[in-house]
Amino acid sequence: MSLPFVYHGQSDFWVKRSEHSLTLTLVTAREDHYDRVLIRHEPDNEEYLVAMSAIDNDEHCQYWQATIALNTDSPLTHYTFKLMRGLKQFWLSGQGVDRRIPARAFHFKYNAESQPPSWVKNQVFYQIFPDRFANGKAEISVKDGEYSLLGGKASVAKTWGAPVGNHLSSGACEFYGGDLYGVEQKLDYLQDLGVTALYLNPIFSAPSNHKYDTTDYFEVDSHLGGNQQFATLCADLHQRDMRVMLDAVFNHTSTDHPWFNRDGKQPSIGAYQAVDSPYRDYYFFDGDSDRYIGWKGIDSLPVLNFHNQDVRDIIYASDDAVIKHWLRAPYHIDGWRFDVIHMLGEGQGAKNNAHYVKAFRQSAKQVNPDCYILGEHFFEATQWLQGEQEDGSMNYFGFAHPLRALLANLDVSSDPIEIDMHEFCFWLDQARATIPWANQLAQLNQLDSHDTPRFFEMVKHDVTRFHIASALLFAYVGTPCLYYGTEVALAGGADPDNRRCMPWHEVEGNPHFTLFQRLIRLRKSHPALQQGDFQWLAQGEQGMAFARVCRSSEDRVIFAMNLASKPVTYNVPIWQIGTSARQFSRFAQPGVDHVIDGELELTLAPHSFEIWHAVD
Amino acid sequence: MSLPFVYHGQSDFWVKRSEHSLTLTLVTAREDHYDRVLIRHEPDNEEYLVAMSAIDNDEHCQYWQATIALNTDSPLTHYTFKLMRGLKQFWLSGQGVDRRIPARAFHFKYNAESQPPSWVKNQVFYQIFPDRFANGKAEISVKDGEYSLLGGKASVAKTWGAPVGNHLSSGACEFYGGDLYGVEQKLDYLQDLGVTALYLNPIFSAPSNHKYDTTDYFEVDSHLGGNQQFATLCADLHQRDMRVMLDAVFNHTSTDHPWFNRDGKQPSIGAYQAVDSPYRDYYFFDGDSDRYIGWKGIDSLPVLNFHNQDVRDIIYASDDAVIKHWLRAPYHIDGWRFDVIHMLGEGQGAKNNAHYVKAFRQSAKQVNPDCYILGEHFFEATQWLQGEQEDGSMNYFGFAHPLRALLANLDVSSDPIEIDMHEFCFWLDQARATIPWANQLAQLNQLDSHDTPRFFEMVKHDVTRFHIASALLFAYVGTPCLYYGTEVALAGGADPDNRRCMPWHEVEGNPHFTLFQRLIRLRKSHPALQQGDFQWLAQGEQGMAFARVCRSSEDRVIFAMNLASKPVTYNVPIWQIGTSARQFSRFAQPGVDHVIDGELELTLAPHSFEIWHAVD
Repeated sequence: MSLPFVYHGQSDFWVKRSEHSLTLTLVTAREDHYDRVLIRHEPDNEEYLVAMSAIDNDEHCQYWQATIALNTDSPLTHYTFKLMRGLKQFWLSGQGVDRRIPARAFHFKYNAESQPPSWVKNQVFYQIFPDRFANGKAEISVKDGEYSLLGGKASVAKTWGAPVGNHLSSGACEFYGGDLYGVEQKLDYLQDLGVTALYLNPIFSAPSNHKYDTTDYFEVDSHLGGNQQFATLCADLHQRDMRVMLDAVFNHTSTDHPWFNRDGKQPSIGAYQAVDSPYRDYYFFDGDSDRYIGWKGIDSLPVLNFHNQDVRDIIYASDDAVIKHWLRAPYHIDGWRFDVIHMLGEGQGAKNNAHYVKAFRQSAKQVNPDCYILGEHFFEATQWLQGEQEDGSMNYFGFAHPLRALLANLDVSSDPIEIDMHEFCFWLDQARATIPWANQLAQLNQLDSHDTPRFFEMVKHDVTRFHIASALLFAYVGTPCLYYGTEVALAGGADPDNRRCMPWHEVEGNPHFTLFQRLIRLRKSHPALQQGDFQWLAQGEQGMAFARVCRSSEDRVIFAMNLASKPVTYNVPIWQIGTSARQFSRFAQPGVDHVIDGELELTLAPHSFEIWHAVD
Repeated sequence: MSLPFVYHGQSDFWVKRSEHSLTLTLVTAREDHYDRVLIRHEPDNEEYLVAMSAIDNDEHCQYWQATIALNTDSPLTHYTFKLMRGLKQFWLSGQGVDRRIPARAFHFKYNAESQPPSWVKNQVFYQIFPDRFANGKAEISVKDGEYSLLGGKASVAKTWGAPVGNHLSSGACEFYGGDLYGVEQKLDYLQDLGVTALYLNPIFSAPSNHKYDTTDYFEVDSHLGGNQQFATLCADLHQRDMRVMLDAVFNHTSTDHPWFNRDGKQPSIGAYQAVDSPYRDYYFFDGDSDRYIGWKGIDSLPVLNFHNQDVRDIIYASDDAVIKHWLRAPYHIDGWRFDVIHMLGEGQGAKNNAHYVKAFRQSAKQVNPDCYILGEHFFEATQWLQGEQEDGSMNYFGFAHPLRALLANLDVSSDPIEIDMHEFCFWLDQARATIPWANQLAQLNQLDSHDTPRFFEMVKHDVTRFHIASALLFAYVGTPCLYYGTEVALAGGADPDNRRCMPWHEVEGNPHFTLFQRLIRLRKSHPALQQGDFQWLAQGEQGMAFARVCRSSEDRVIFAMNLASKPVTYNVPIWQIGTSARQFSRFAQPGVDHVIDGELELTLAPHSFEIWHAVD
C-alpha cells in the first residue's frame, strides 16, 4: 500500500512558538485533495481536533497551517496530524504516515519549558581519553610502581604506542603519560581537523588510568596537570571559541576516596573502616557488616547513596557543590557528561532516579543556563530525553547501535545481528520519534567510544564501510562526536584495546584525516546538517537517501548510501524538499547533478555514499 | 521475511512470581536450533541478559526457563527475550517478534505491587442508563414540568418507547421514568442472559436525565429510588453473587450543586453567588468575575478544583469521603467508573492528574482492596494503566475503535476510516503491548456505550457484522460489557438517540438475545476466554484467527473471522498452543473438526465467525 506525501518538520519553519501556543505547518502534494486536514492534540489530556487552513501552494505543494494551545498541565505538548480523503485516513506522527491514530509514544513532542542550549547542535565534539591522547609533560607521568591500585597491583608506566594490556584488570594500572598539557599542545591540530568542543573522560583524582574511580571531586589528578593546568586549558579553549565537557562520575567513588577509605590509605575514618564513620551512610552497607554495594557488583566502585543529604549537598545541592564548582571561574566548563546516570539514586535500584537527574540539571543550569547536560545510556533513553532531565544522551541506541548492526553485524553485546536497510531506517525513525526535536539535535552521536570496540575494528578495517558510517555521522540528526584517533582510523577491539595511544606519527598526510576534515567542513558550512529537518527521500533493500533541510537559510543537503555490489539510482522529487534549485553539487565524487523535470537522479556506485547540496 | 515461532504468554504458566523474582517460560519450535536464548531486563535501569535453560520439550516444542529479579526502583518490571541463531537475532516483546531490540514501550511489563482485583476478568458486565432501562415505580418518575433545568427548560415526561429528542440540549430534559426499582425487577432477566455485574450510569441527585451534573454526591436521585432503594438493590445483587459499579463524576458538578448554586435554587451561598462564598475556591473563577471554567467550555458543568483541600477531603481524602462512603454498608459497591478521569486535576489543564488518580485508587482500596478502579478514556490510556492508577479503562482505544474502524468504517469522531485486517490486528497488539497483562484482562471492552452511536447502527443494521463483533467481544482479551439493549440489537445513532428505551416487548424469542446468551455461556464456561493467554494463529487480508489458552485448566479456544465474500481456510498448527487435543467443537455451525497431522483446518464461510474449543 503506497502512502501519500505528507510532511511536517519540527524546526522553526514548521513550528512557530508564541507564549501559549504553537502555529504548525504541514505540507502535502498539491495533487492530493483532502476532505479535511486537522491537528490532533490533548491540551488538557482530552482530544481536540483543529482544522488546518490551506495557506499557500506552489506547483507541487499545498501548505496547511493552524494554531494550537500549549499544554498547561505539562511542559510537553503532543500532537499528530489527521488527513481525510473519502474513506481513507492518513495520520502523520514522528514515525511517519499511518492509516490510523499512531501510538501516543510517537506523537510529535514539543517541550515549552526545557530545551537544550542552542550552541550544542553547531559543535563537532572530540572525545579524549586523557592518558592516551598526548603526553605534554613527562615529569608528571605516573611512574612504574609509583603507587598501588586496588588488589595491590602496582602502577605500570608504559612507552607511548606500546600495546595495551589484554585484561581489564591489568589495563587499569597501565599509564602512558597522556595529560592536559598534551591536550593543550594539540589544540591547533584539533582546530585544523575542525573540532569545536572537547569531551574529556574523567580527569579528577583517581588511582586508575580511566579515572572512573574518583578520590577527590574537587581536584584534577596531578598526573594530568592538576587544577592549575586545567584552568589554563579551559581559558585557552574558550579563547579559541571552543567548548569543554567533563565526565561526571557520581554514581560511585573509588574505594580509596576518603569517604570510603577501604585500604586505609587516607587519613580519614572512612565508611568502610568504622560503623560510626561520618561517611557510613554515604554508601550502602549491609547493616554493621563490611559488605557493601558496588556498581554492577564491582567491589572497587562503591555506590553513593543520594538519599543522604550530605551526598546531595556535596554533589549538587550546596552552593559549592561539585556540579556548580566546575561551571564557575576559573574553569567555566560548558557541559557535564553524567556517567551511568540511569542507575543512580537511593539504593541499588535507582530509586527516585528521575528526581536526581532533574536536580543535577537544575543545579547546573543555576550557574550556567547554557550548560549541556548529557547522559550516558547504552540503551533506549526516551524517559530521560523529554526535556526536563537531559539535553541529550550518548546516542548509542538511536545511532551507534543501528549503524553497527547494519554495517558491522554486531549488537551492543557484540553478538551477531543482521538487519536490512528498512529495519535500519525504521530503527532510526523510531528512536527519534519518541523525543522532542530540540533534544534530537542535542543527541551526541558517536561511532564508538572508550566503552566499545573501535568502529573501524568492528567493520574489520573495511575502509568503505568506515567511511560510509563516518559520512552518516556528519549528515545525520544530532551532534557528532569523534572518539580520539578515529580521524586516522585508529584500530582496537574491546576495552582496554579501544584505548590505544594516539598514533601521532600516522597523522601527517593521513587520507582518513583528510576525509574527516572535509566532512567536518561540510557539516560546519551547512546549517541544514546542524539543525535542518530530516526527510526520507528513498529506502531500498540495500540503499537509502534522505535530505536535511534548513528553510530559514535556504540550505538543502542530501545524503545517500548504497551497500549493494551493484550501482543504484534513486530519482527523487526535489519539490518535496521545498526548493526550485536546479543544480546539486556532489561531495564524494565532485561534480554537479542537474534537476530535470523536478527530479534529481541520485546515482550511487557499489558500496558508496554521496552527499549533495543545492547550489542554486 | 518469515519470522520463527517464538511465544511467551503472561499468565501464571509463563510468569511465576516469587517474593523478589519472576521465573519466565518461553516456547520455540523444536526444529529451530538457537545458539543462545536470553531474557533481557533492567532491574536497576541497566541492561542484564540472563541465559534461559532448555527445560522441557515435546515433539514440536522446546521450552526455556530462567529467573530474573524484580525491579526494586519501581513496581514495574520490564523484560524482553533475545534469541540468536547465526547472524540472526529474534526479539520477542508484547508486540511480537522483531529482528532487533524493540522499543521499550512494548517490552513485557509486570507490576509487582498493584494488580486489578481477580474477580473482574470473570465478569460479564451490563451497562444501564437508568432512565431508559425499566420503570419499576411510576409514582417517582419525573413529571412534565416538575422542575426546570439550566436555561429554564422544563422537564418533559415521555411515554416509554417514544422517540428521543433530536438535540442534546432537549435530550437532557426528557424523562422516561426508568429507575432502580425497574433494575431490580429485571435481575432475573439479566441473570437469564448471563450478566454477572452491573455498571450504572450516574445515579446521584442531578437535574438532567444523564445525571453527569451532580447536585449531591451522597444522595441517590429520588426519581431513581433514593438511597434506600439503592441499598436494597445492592443487597439483592450481592445475594445473587452479582456486582455493581457506579459512575464517579468528580471532574465537575451541576451549576445547581449547593457549592455552586448558579440559579439560586439552593439555600446555600454558592461560589457563583458570592466572591466570599466558602465554596468559591472549589471551582475556577476568573478573579472576582462570574466567569468560570466549565468542562470543555460547557457552562452547565463547572470544573472542580482539586487543589482545594476541602474538595479533596469530600471526594476522596476524609474518612467519609464520597469514594469511601459508597464502598461501605449498606451499599458495598464493587467498583467505581471514573468519568473523564484524565482531565481532572488542579485547573483547566489536568495538572498533577496522576497524583489524583493514584489518590482515588488508594482511597477506594483502603475500604475495599477488591474495588475495581475503571477509568473513562476515549483515547490511548497507557499512562493510566501501568498498575498504580487504574485497574482498567473503558477500552475504546484498544477494542471498540479498531473494531469500529474495521467493521463500520468509522473512527472515534464518526469520520470515515478504512483499515485492513493486518492494521486491525496490529492495532489490537500495540494497544495490549503497552500495559501489564493483569490490566489487559481488566480492560472493560464494549462495542458501544451511552457516549457513542449503537454499534448495530454503525454497521447499518448489518446483522452479520454485528454478530462477528459481538462474538469477538466475548472471545477477546478483557472483560466484556454489554450496553443495555445490545442483546436485542437495539438501534440508535449518536447521543441522545443511543439512549432509547429498552424495548421489553421485543425481548421474547429474540434471536440476538439467544446468540448473546450462548456467547456469554461460552465465555463463562471457558477459563481460556476469561483469562487465557492470547496467541495469533493466522492473519490474512480479510480474515484472522487467534487462540485463547489457559494451560492451568487445560482449556483452549480458537476464534476466527472472515470478512471476505469467499470462504477461507486456515490450517493452524495446533502444537503451537501446547495441546495434543484431537478434536475441536464448533460454536456457530455446531459440529466437530479433527486435528490431522497436528493441524486443525479452520474453514470459514463468507462473512462469518467461528469459535472452536478443544474437546479431548
